Amino acid sequence: MTAAKLIELWRGGIRESTHLGHVVIADGNGIIEAWGDPGAVIFPRSSCKMIQALPLIESGAADAAGLGPDHLALACASHNGAAIHTGRVTSWLSGLGLAEGDLRCGAHLPKDPEEHRRLICTDSAPCQIHNNCSGKHAGFLTLNRHLGGGAEYVELDHPVQQAVRGAFEEVTGEVSAGWGVDGCSAPNFACTVEGLARAMAAFAAPGGGLRGDAQRRLVQAMMTHPELVAGEGRACTELMRAARGRAALKTGAEAVFVGIVPERGLGIALKVTDGGTRGSEAAITALLVHLGILAEGDPVVQKYLTGAQRNWRGLVTGELRRASGFPL
Amino acid sequence: MTAAKLIELWRGGIRESTHLGHVVIADGNGIIEAWGDPGAVIFPRSSCKMIQALPLIESGAADAAGLGPDHLALACASHNGAAIHTGRVTSWLSGLGLAEGDLRCGAHLPKDPEEHRRLICTDSAPCQIHNNCSGKHAGFLTLNRHLGGGAEYVELDHPVQQAVRGAFEEVTGEVSAGWGVDGCSAPNFACTVEGLARAMAAFAAPGGGLRGDAQRRLVQAMMTHPELVAGEGRACTELMRAARGRAALKTGAEAVFVGIVPERGLGIALKVTDGGTRGSEAAITALLVHLGILAEGDPVVQKYLTGAQRNWRGLVTGELRRASGFPL
Repeated sequence: MTAAKLIELWRGGIRESTHLGHVVIADGNGIIEAWGDPGAVIFPRSSCKMIQALPLIESGAADAAGLGPDHLALACASHNGAAIHTGRVTSWLSGLGLAEGDLRCGAHLPKDPEEHRRLICTDSAPCQIHNNCSGKHAGFLTLNRHLGGGAEYVELDHPVQQAVRGAFEEVTGEVSAGWGVDGCSAPNFACTVEGLARAMAAFAAPGGGLRGDAQRRLVQAMMTHPELVAGEGRACTELMRAARGRAALKTGAEAVFVGIVPERGLGIALKVTDGGTRGSEAAITALLVHLGILAEGDPVVQKYLTGAQRNWRGLVTGELRRASGFPL
Repeated sequence: MTAAKLIELWRGGIRESTHLGHVVIADGNGIIEAWGDPGAVIFPRSSCKMIQALPLIESGAADAAGLGPDHLALACASHNGAAIHTGRVTSWLSGLGLAEGDLRCGAHLPKDPEEHRRLICTDSAPCQIHNNCSGKHAGFLTLNRHLGGGAEYVELDHPVQQAVRGAFEEVTGEVSAGWGVDGCSAPNFACTVEGLARAMAAFAAPGGGLRGDAQRRLVQAMMTHPELVAGEGRACTELMRAARGRAALKTGAEAVFVGIVPERGLGIALKVTDGGTRGSEAAITALLVHLGILAEGDPVVQKYLTGAQRNWRGLVTGELRRASGFPL
């Protein structure tokens, strides 16, 4: 099956650009709705951080280290590198007797405008704690201390990544079709869009035992701390705030987005095939309206989907539209 | 006809993302090669700036104002707002007895890292001269002084835009299917990908008379001053430098790219339908290799197409690939 038309950019009454993709909404029994090919193999990228955090809790490492919901939210985050993120990661590492140099995520300039400006204007280099994945990596290091593994915790055969792979294959219900190196150097395991939606549905309706408890805590942490999962001005944060505790949401590079809707036991997974974030942010927004989580007139729906596109002088240049058949 | 697969991103041996699009290579007699739908209607956006500059020369306005090849290159540019761009636009306007406030392109932070940093770190706002289209608008103002039009030169019925529309429809060989407001507030006229390639072929093999002279001067100006057409680190500049006077190239927003190859009388036009610049830059690079303008091993070919994708730690994460059937 080919990708479905999801989101279009219109200008002057003419369709200028089109985002295609694959979308699955699932519950514990399987697919509820789908567009495109549910069997398409994708890399979830950062959208699966809550899956990567399962061994952190299930092993007992999180509790042994005294992690709170804020730490768990950061473990699931692609954060802006603002003070609220970097401060917590710094003290988290320090509590483990570790430091920035123990991370293996690499350094990049943070998206947070204030910290970005501070670094640029003081001629300072960003460090690995600024990396949007530093919370996930602090989680890896916490698990690693518990497991007693070696320092190179992002290698595929390291106990940390083997634990992640095990959890990933269990919640997606699939043997991973392969793996790639992620932007943060950790392995990222491939799955189908359906498998990723199935995993999100499991987070939406957790069962008993260690797994269910870990899923419940991670979803609650994300919804309690939307500002830690991304940051000011970012889609995950703004959409979760607008959802007011009714959905946990997470983006991934190359235009992946997942949603967890506990009140209906639903999991959402989508991949815009061109990898463009504009399309995935608009598509998840359309689905949240479709499911009744957000109202059509909500300011965040306008920001990511229905609002006018404007140029540097504020003139209206066009608009995004849901493609015919999506999501209705 | 649907869009063709052009460029793919691969990670860990799995195709992660795909860019579709429409591509036409034409000469004065019509289509030589095509992928996707040559009849697809697109907005050329900034890729048609050399068309928008035709009336500037043909009217006699450019010569009356004493414009050199550097000014003509800037009229065709989406520049970085570096000192080499803003300095020339400032003195150009001053020579017309005009100033920044006469522009109607709006202000945005420049891409040039040095000027960007200066503005950010001195708490200064960018001005309209920083706008990547300020050279095109200085050209509009030059034409406007010659035509004696009113101050609002970006309005659709203004003599400047009517002259642009006339030239656009003549060189594309089409009645424009519509128009939209561009990022810089000027009207942008729609055409087919074939029409845009036909126009570029006309620039590649100009005839006699005013039109041919203007086309020849604009192509020569772009190839003589690749640094003015975009800026350091940008695809238009780097690819034109590597082509060493064998091609004039111009990008446009929402993933349009055009090429002019005088030695073979060829025009190229392409639109990646998702609007992602990664795809259009890779696709034009593939076409330049296909036409023998660039060598497969050229560093710019590696940068925009064949080189490894690396993450923050320098690890290889994947690669871009030409999709099967493109361009061979």
